[in-house]
Amino acid sequence: MTTDPHPWAADLTLLHAQVWTRLVRGVGDRHAPARHPTLATVTPGGLPDLRTVVLRAAESGAGTLDIHTDLRSAKVAALRHCPQVALHVWDASAQLQTRIAATVDILTGAAVAALWARVPQTSQAGYGTQPEPGTPIAHALDYAKTPDPASFAVLRCTVHSIDALHLGPRHRRARFDRSDNWHGQWLSP
Amino acid sequence: MTTDPHPWAADLTLLHAQVWTRLVRGVGDRHAPARHPTLATVTPGGLPDLRTVVLRAAESGAGTLDIHTDLRSAKVAALRHCPQVALHVWDASAQLQTRIAATVDILTGAAVAALWARVPQTSQAGYGTQPEPGTPIAHALDYAKTPDPASFAVLRCTVHSIDALHLGPRHRRARFDRSDNWHGQWLSP
Repeated sequence: MTTDPHPWAADLTLLHAQVWTRLVRGVGDRHAPARHPTLATVTPGGLPDLRTVVLRAAESGAGTLDIHTDLRSAKVAALRHCPQVALHVWDASAQLQTRIAATVDILTGAAVAALWARVPQTSQAGYGTQPEPGTPIAHALDYAKTPDPASFAVLRCTVHSIDALHLGPRHRRARFDRSDNWHGQWLSP
Repeated sequence: MTTDPHPWAADLTLLHAQVWTRLVRGVGDRHAPARHPTLATVTPGGLPDLRTVVLRAAESGAGTLDIHTDLRSAKVAALRHCPQVALHVWDASAQLQTRIAATVDILTGAAVAALWARVPQTSQAGYGTQPEPGTPIAHALDYAKTPDPASFAVLRCTVHSIDALHLGPRHRRARFDRSDNWHGQWLSP
C-alpha cells in the first residue's frame, strides 16, 4: 500500500490552498515551477500570443499576481487592446496544471517607483532596451540595455478564476471562481 | 575561455534548424521540453486561454505540428471560433524560448482512423470521457473514461511564424516567417 503523495488533490479547499501555496513559492524560489508562468494575451488583431514571464508577487488574500515588463513590449500593446489574460503553470512535482484567468492593470511611473527602487541594478537593465523590444535589427547584438524607469511597468493581474488539474492515478479537475468566493466545483477532466 | 555551448544561436539558419530539431525531439522523447508545449487559443468570448498539450508530430519540411485532443473539449470549441493558435516551449537546457503562430485544421473521423489505430489502448481511454470534459460533477471521480474514436481529433497546426529567444550572456531574438521562406530576421530582445 502506497501513501497518496498529494492528499490535497482530493479536497476542494485544500486544492485551492495548494494552488496558492505554489504560486507564492514561485515568487520566492527561482527554481519553483510557478516562478515562470506562461502568459497568454490577445493581440489587437484578435490572435492569441504567449510567452514566459517571471512571477514577482502573489497575494492569495486579494487574489492578485504581479509581473514586471517593458512598457514598450508587444504584450503591453496587446493588454491595452484586451486586458484579459490567462496564466499557466505546470508543476511536475505536484503533477498539477494551474490555469488562471485574470484582468490586468498596467501600473507605471509614480505608482511603481517604490517597486522600481527594489529591482536589482542588474535586472533594471532589462527595462529600457534600445531599440525597443521587437524592432528588426541587422545583427543579433545590435541593441543596448539601458535602465529606464519610464519603461518599467507592473502588470497587476486580478484573478477571476482558476482551473486546477491534478494528474494522479485518476485525474481530478476543479474550477474556482472569485464570484463564488473560491468555493470550487469539480469538473469532468 | 569557455566554449559557447550554443553556437547555433548566433546564426539565423542554424537557429531555425535548432528550433525544429528540438520540436522533432519532443515527439519521440517524452522527457524533452517540446513534448509538452503550451497551446493558446481565443475563446468564442474573445478571451485568451491556454493549456499543456502533447506534441504528437512535427514535420519541419511542411512546417506542421500535430496535437491530439477530445473533440468535445473547450479548446475545440475555441478553435471553431478562431483557428489561430500560439504554441510555446521553454527549453531550459538550450536556454531557448520558442513561440509559434499557427492555423489549425481539426481532423476527425475517417481522416484520422489510421492515426487512431496507432494510439496505444491505454491512451485511447483519454478520448471519450463521460460526462464530456468540463462538465460540473458532484464528486471528483464522477466520470468514466471510455475510448470513443468519434471523440478523437487531430489538431494539425500549420506554422506561419516562429519567434525564437535565446538567453545567453547576451540575448538573441529572431523571427522566422513562412511568407519569407523562413529566412529569418533578428529582433531587439
